[in-house]
Amino acid sequence: MIASKGYAAQGPTTNLAPWNFERREVGAHDVQIEIQFCGVCHSDLHQIKNDWFPGIFPMVPGHEIVGKIIKVGSESKKFKIGDLAGVGCLVDSCRTCENCQEGLEQYCLNHNVGTYNSKGKDGLPTYGGYSNNIVVHEDFALRISNKLSLAAVAPLLCAGITTYSPLRYWKVGKGHKLAVLGLGGLGHMAVKFGVSFGAEVTVLSTSPSKEKEAKALGAHKFVVTSDPAQIAAVKGSFDFILDTVSAEHDMNMYLSLLRTNGTHIIVGAPSDPHSISAFSLLGGRKSLAGSGIGGLPETQEMLDYCAEHNILSDIEIIDIKDIHKSYERMLKGDVRYRFVIDIATL
Amino acid sequence: MIASKGYAAQGPTTNLAPWNFERREVGAHDVQIEIQFCGVCHSDLHQIKNDWFPGIFPMVPGHEIVGKIIKVGSESKKFKIGDLAGVGCLVDSCRTCENCQEGLEQYCLNHNVGTYNSKGKDGLPTYGGYSNNIVVHEDFALRISNKLSLAAVAPLLCAGITTYSPLRYWKVGKGHKLAVLGLGGLGHMAVKFGVSFGAEVTVLSTSPSKEKEAKALGAHKFVVTSDPAQIAAVKGSFDFILDTVSAEHDMNMYLSLLRTNGTHIIVGAPSDPHSISAFSLLGGRKSLAGSGIGGLPETQEMLDYCAEHNILSDIEIIDIKDIHKSYERMLKGDVRYRFVIDIATL
Repeated sequence: MIASKGYAAQGPTTNLAPWNFERREVGAHDVQIEIQFCGVCHSDLHQIKNDWFPGIFPMVPGHEIVGKIIKVGSESKKFKIGDLAGVGCLVDSCRTCENCQEGLEQYCLNHNVGTYNSKGKDGLPTYGGYSNNIVVHEDFALRISNKLSLAAVAPLLCAGITTYSPLRYWKVGKGHKLAVLGLGGLGHMAVKFGVSFGAEVTVLSTSPSKEKEAKALGAHKFVVTSDPAQIAAVKGSFDFILDTVSAEHDMNMYLSLLRTNGTHIIVGAPSDPHSISAFSLLGGRKSLAGSGIGGLPETQEMLDYCAEHNILSDIEIIDIKDIHKSYERMLKGDVRYRFVIDIATL
Repeated sequence: MIASKGYAAQGPTTNLAPWNFERREVGAHDVQIEIQFCGVCHSDLHQIKNDWFPGIFPMVPGHEIVGKIIKVGSESKKFKIGDLAGVGCLVDSCRTCENCQEGLEQYCLNHNVGTYNSKGKDGLPTYGGYSNNIVVHEDFALRISNKLSLAAVAPLLCAGITTYSPLRYWKVGKGHKLAVLGLGGLGHMAVKFGVSFGAEVTVLSTSPSKEKEAKALGAHKFVVTSDPAQIAAVKGSFDFILDTVSAEHDMNMYLSLLRTNGTHIIVGAPSDPHSISAFSLLGGRKSLAGSGIGGLPETQEMLDYCAEHNILSDIEIIDIKDIHKSYERMLKGDVRYRFVIDIATL
């Protein structure tokens, strides 16, 4: 076993604190990554607090992992020592169901294995990227171009793919009006991808103060959702809304902003169910859809696209000792736009 | 003005009763139809009871209208006297918005004119098909083949197009597993169209007693939704669910029956909003969509398709004096599958 160290929550009411644990030995098809940076995702906080389901503790969060290959298994051919590599939300899946066969491991029909707060096929808990290393099957490690700033790549592994995937699946691009709801870690990536794909991008936000930043990210328009006049002006106008908000919000109002045949795509998950009037969908053949992260082939495609088009997350690098302060700021929306832990501070 | 007679509700708490009223004179582009049959739609009852919104009274319901052309306007070229013709849910629209231009009059951006419980461009209330005649712009009258039994054509004008349109829009056909939820006026048409388009059709119903009838309509499979074992067996299996139920039902359970990328299409409208968990959509990139009736070109296409493939509604012809008895039976699901008023009994 490989002695490892990280930050773990011992239970849903405790804070994260240093913790020593063991990783499995590097198997024939595994690689070991020395973690250099790990992004801080809102779902890290949801999971250590048991917001969605009872978690597995001790829990080492983190699924926006980037670093350097330091060991490769005897049969592993994808990487060589010294290569940059990343790990996102998944570290395994059944590999055999029709979704896995199509590269949709995020929708594995036999339960995929999350990077943390999950159990591997060996029955042992998985531990995430708030740690100094990770051992993972090479198929679940992504290649990362060394053209890009590594720390700013980390959030692509979750925030990036979660917004890239639906925009690609629904073929959002030239001629489309795309609204991005919520300008956080996911939202700011949605703006960058939407603009890059050729859509006219409008940011919908409760904070008038975010207009300047939204435009700086490339957004063409900005709408303050608390201003009835601004909302009235965009009724029935969007082909797509990409909804990154994981707090409760009035879906029927947002559905009214879609044009005929429009699609409202949710990638965030509030704890409580949405309340949807049938008339909000019937009156204009509208759809409410969901999309969860992305599969391995598409995640690699996204990373390659980002390298080619120089798309990165806007980040603030933090010391791991400041993780709780960062969570507090994240909850207040006080981050532009993703905290990334410098694992050297561990 | 044209002296007309029909059955009207004088208010939301009164029963329907005979009522004399006037239709407008036949304008240059109008036709006058002597109504022979009119289907009884659940929405007739919703509207005379003010279930959805405050209605316009006196109200003459009915939007599944078939009959014979008895007068044509001076500029009207589409019909000649004696032709069969039908009128569905719409009698006018703005004609100029992008949706009207595309033949999506049901989604007119400037308010279309309903066949009853609506106001025409002249500001006068519209009256539906529980009456002896109707005057309508020729563009909103549909051609009906005389190959088909006229009474059984009537329900195609609402129940038919409401199910035909989404199945066409989402290209449901060969290789797809389609579930039809609810086996009433809409549901039985959905089964016929789904089978005709080549899909494998499963009827989902609370009533085990409907299995034989469902199969007789052409359904390949039948699932009793109150039986956990039968539900478990179809989890994650349908490409599409066409949901014709307008009473409250557990949407998250039904969403779990969709396979990855599946779409649950609602065409019924319960008074209360649906409660939708984000996870029901995220976990499998699923969509919840709505579809409302159909536009004029597609309604004509549907009628022509039905003539070519001999598709009709299964009906029970009633005397208009039995309309309230029929509503009661409809509410109990005691109709196979649509009541149609013989207007000769008026």
